[in-house]
Amino acid sequence: MREIYAEIITIGDEILYGQILDTNSQWISQQLDDIGVKVRRKYSISDQSEVIKTAVNESLAQSDLVFVTGGLGPTKDDLTKHSLAAMFEMPLELNQSALEDVEDIFKRFGKELTEINRQQAFLPKGSTKITNERGTAPGMWFDRDKKVVVSMPGVPFEMKAMMTKTILPKIKKRFQLPVIIHKVIRTIGIGESWLSEEIARWENALPTHLALAYLPGKAQVRLRLTGVGEEREVLEAEMEEQVAALLPTIQSYVYGFGDLEIEEAVGELLRAKSLTIATAESCTGGYLAHKITSVSGSSDYYTGSVIAYQNEVKIQELNVSPKTIEKHGAVSEETAKEMAEGIRKKLNVDLGISLTGIAGPDGGTEEKPVGMVWMAISFGGTVKTRKIQSPGTRILNIEYSGVKALDFIRQTLIEA
Amino acid sequence: MREIYAEIITIGDEILYGQILDTNSQWISQQLDDIGVKVRRKYSISDQSEVIKTAVNESLAQSDLVFVTGGLGPTKDDLTKHSLAAMFEMPLELNQSALEDVEDIFKRFGKELTEINRQQAFLPKGSTKITNERGTAPGMWFDRDKKVVVSMPGVPFEMKAMMTKTILPKIKKRFQLPVIIHKVIRTIGIGESWLSEEIARWENALPTHLALAYLPGKAQVRLRLTGVGEEREVLEAEMEEQVAALLPTIQSYVYGFGDLEIEEAVGELLRAKSLTIATAESCTGGYLAHKITSVSGSSDYYTGSVIAYQNEVKIQELNVSPKTIEKHGAVSEETAKEMAEGIRKKLNVDLGISLTGIAGPDGGTEEKPVGMVWMAISFGGTVKTRKIQSPGTRILNIEYSGVKALDFIRQTLIEA
Repeated sequence: MREIYAEIITIGDEILYGQILDTNSQWISQQLDDIGVKVRRKYSISDQSEVIKTAVNESLAQSDLVFVTGGLGPTKDDLTKHSLAAMFEMPLELNQSALEDVEDIFKRFGKELTEINRQQAFLPKGSTKITNERGTAPGMWFDRDKKVVVSMPGVPFEMKAMMTKTILPKIKKRFQLPVIIHKVIRTIGIGESWLSEEIARWENALPTHLALAYLPGKAQVRLRLTGVGEEREVLEAEMEEQVAALLPTIQSYVYGFGDLEIEEAVGELLRAKSLTIATAESCTGGYLAHKITSVSGSSDYYTGSVIAYQNEVKIQELNVSPKTIEKHGAVSEETAKEMAEGIRKKLNVDLGISLTGIAGPDGGTEEKPVGMVWMAISFGGTVKTRKIQSPGTRILNIEYSGVKALDFIRQTLIEA
Repeated sequence: MREIYAEIITIGDEILYGQILDTNSQWISQQLDDIGVKVRRKYSISDQSEVIKTAVNESLAQSDLVFVTGGLGPTKDDLTKHSLAAMFEMPLELNQSALEDVEDIFKRFGKELTEINRQQAFLPKGSTKITNERGTAPGMWFDRDKKVVVSMPGVPFEMKAMMTKTILPKIKKRFQLPVIIHKVIRTIGIGESWLSEEIARWENALPTHLALAYLPGKAQVRLRLTGVGEEREVLEAEMEEQVAALLPTIQSYVYGFGDLEIEEAVGELLRAKSLTIATAESCTGGYLAHKITSVSGSSDYYTGSVIAYQNEVKIQELNVSPKTIEKHGAVSEETAKEMAEGIRKKLNVDLGISLTGIAGPDGGTEEKPVGMVWMAISFGGTVKTRKIQSPGTRILNIEYSGVKALDFIRQTLIEA
């Protein structure tokens, strides 16, 4: 079976100038990926007739399917429909069904149909109308030598309804598609290059229809294994076998699969063990608590926190000894320990975690540079500590420390 | 003066398959727009040598500047460097300065340099190394018949540092660019359509070389006035006059200009008035404290916080009366008031702010729907309250509430 290729073209100067973020093409990609259509290329171009024609022509020469979004509004800077009509030599004609759709939409909102909107019911002769349930601009489907061009509005929720309801089902009927499966393994606490060395033998032995990609993030690397085959069950079984063979090598770094975030993984561990948690934060200023509580249902295990930015708050609210701060400083293993103990006792939770460090950009010294953070966990009768060095600017240091703290919690819970 | 055109190429199957959202090209577009470079086209392509070469060649034929991101990692699926080296016929050679950079990075993290990472110091002979302060892959600058190709890593914070520190200044020197001035006015607490009605008369009277854009964000709208001209001083004076004419109409919504974030504006107000602040958060789970402390120097006015997720913590740590919670509920004006009073007294600050609400997705009722949040500020002998309705999903509700709380603080301080 041969691969079916697609290209996605988003039209609009507002994308090129960075005024809006293009999220349409990601969403379309995901939908196509799910049905085994391979996206070869995406591009964003300007709202000009010649540019649009050239782009669609080029894509059509390369790929089986071309998705065009944007440039279908009623205003004069929206040129997609006219460009496609000219390119395919299909003159515009009134499409009765499209007119009824537009009239319906206007009726629904209790408005009079304007001449400008009536123009939207004119479609290239020979194209197939795609109903727009959520707006006035119909979509268009063009057949061309066994290839297909689809034109949709740029408004995301109009485009998505068209894709889901009409276009994807039509594509599945029209083309014979392969089976594509992705498996994502989420790791934390190991850099991309070390990870790649650890798994080199496994990776090199992968059959050619299975491909591995490294997707790095903040203190994390996602491994994505992509398989292409003809029978879903066979491919699924083969990939599960490969993942099972890989896991023992990197077990301690793996916190989950698919879309699972580290804060969700930590939440699942806490819930499974019926444990409660509280944070005592200095340099992260509430970021760790924010990550933990960004998970829906976190009130099952999260109680509360004290953010102790000033030393007096550490002393008064977390029971840190003034002598400890005087002797070792607020950013020290000793202070972190007392903070973790303090929050655990104060909020009567199972696990108390603390962070104290230098977020920057000021306040660093040679001994305690910007980005240096001490963390401590008070849990199960002991206090463990860890020192990390975050890599960058203030916000990054805060975020990196938060992720590292989540990993510290995860490891502590797993070892418990 | 002729226009300078650019194209942006993002490399990586993870973008084509929709596994990550490309935010790099939007950010690069914005930077180029700021210095008067026109982005003609952006595209995302696959990690294949032939595809990369064809794309860069095509862009180079069309435009003056080509920005390539991605495909520079140390693993074998990262092919950009080899493709560019082959295309420009520049064999890879060890770049001593790049080697020192990589060694530095490894030293900083106290790790041994691996062979894989050493390979990253090999660059196409004749290209110019661009230092990567935040990662191991150096960037590359290629000169080609008065045109320029720049290759950068796909990791956003590495790419951004390179652009800001090295590439944008180099471009400004290399090309003769028009004078473009942006003035950004930051508003909060008024929607885009209301704002546009308020300022319609001023906007319609703008001369053609000044353009206004509305950039909506979370509970905020930025107004960006863009002027194009030949003499900086003349244009600058003209734009300042226009801004001065606009301001009186919308004064109460304007919290700042340029890059100033609302949390920075609030920090400046607190510092100017020598006031201290603490937060008592329930539904936002530390997000407000995180925003406040994301500002460098916030320890001058920020003391600490209590995150009271559970009712017992509200009662025990914030002195909320159990009767108040019983009678009015944890999400109520009365509870919010007592929380704000409680945190102000507990941490002995000038201004205590509280939030209690339903972040969702569960826990909403008809009377208290998801997204409903009560806020209170205890300051100057009184307690003020405000109820808001956030618009969406859990994370969005948390973020929106945090911004609204910052605006509440701002208004309170301005009126004081």
